[in-house]
Amino acid sequence: QTQKALEEIDACQNEIDALNEQASEEILRVEQKYNRLRKPHLEQRSELIRKIPNFWLTAFLNHPQISPLIDETDEEAFHHMTKLEVEEFEDIKSGYRIKLHFAENPYFENDIVTKEFHLGSAGKPVSQSTPIRWKAGMELTRQHPPADTKGHKRGHSSFFMWFGDHNDPTSDEVAEVLKDDMWPNPLQYYLLPDNDGENG
Amino acid sequence: QTQKALEEIDACQNEIDALNEQASEEILRVEQKYNRLRKPHLEQRSELIRKIPNFWLTAFLNHPQISPLIDETDEEAFHHMTKLEVEEFEDIKSGYRIKLHFAENPYFENDIVTKEFHLGSAGKPVSQSTPIRWKAGMELTRQHPPADTKGHKRGHSSFFMWFGDHNDPTSDEVAEVLKDDMWPNPLQYYLLPDNDGENG
Repeated sequence: QTQKALEEIDACQNEIDALNEQASEEILRVEQKYNRLRKPHLEQRSELIRKIPNFWLTAFLNHPQISPLIDETDEEAFHHMTKLEVEEFEDIKSGYRIKLHFAENPYFENDIVTKEFHLGSAGKPVSQSTPIRWKAGMELTRQHPPADTKGHKRGHSSFFMWFGDHNDPTSDEVAEVLKDDMWPNPLQYYLLPDNDGENG
Repeated sequence: QTQKALEEIDACQNEIDALNEQASEEILRVEQKYNRLRKPHLEQRSELIRKIPNFWLTAFLNHPQISPLIDETDEEAFHHMTKLEVEEFEDIKSGYRIKLHFAENPYFENDIVTKEFHLGSAGKPVSQSTPIRWKAGMELTRQHPPADTKGHKRGHSSFFMWFGDHNDPTSDEVAEVLKDDMWPNPLQYYLLPDNDGENG
């Protein structure tokens, strides 16, 4: 009798599994649809942001989790950042790519620096990134002196170290903040200091 | 000119936010639809499982993350477990409830013991659970002696401690395992020892 019940449970489970599969596919189609619908607005937003000097530097410095990673020499490089882009891969579940666009600048040759996350062979996220082609003597990721003469605490490491850090791609906090917080609404961080208290 | 661009970004952002809102609602409707479609199959599965003696004890003991939490006296109580249920709340995002059903047993009066997770006032998950009404002298959650005479390592704590543990509801590993692994497919854990290698 147990054997019969097990066979019936198995049949039942197949129905449930099939429904789960259908649900995932339907949700993926909804997400893809809205990715398409959002795209022109996101592109328009990028064009508008380009008109505002230091938009990205300001937004990054106003973000509580990103700001501590940007040291004073990084700031010089971020003056040249023109665009942030987060691309979900076609099969959304398989990963995403974060792209930082830069105008010509004294620090590196790349016009786009990317870091991407996709599922590795074990089904766990792995990350990889564009090697930064530093100009001679301009490598911002070299170790800085532990404190500057003005006693600033900020400035012990470079944001650009993040691109080369693939230690824990399953919980890359910077990537998550950029993808899920900065990218959905960068304006709120650009405006942060003037906006204080308005949400209260 | 910056002011004008900011206003245009703001308008653009409003369009994006509205699309995000629509996407969330549409996904929620898909999830609710499939919750409805799954329900009769899940109920049928529960009825079939009830016919199999010690189904839940076996599945729990075969689960790598749950098994270590079940001590030898817990096992006696789990002989009487008749049903596992996971209920998502109507607004799925707001939480879920895990229900363990028990037949009349020597340990406690409850026929259902539950632990539920919902968003607290700060938007973070909080958990609460049914107080277990232990029968006199049968409280399985009392401290056990550190080792038994047979030298078994298992048996230092009781699974039932989990119901009273609300320290870290944002990452309650037992709840996540029950909800996302055991509940979707308990049969695989019931069958685990016979099934070895079949997935390879």
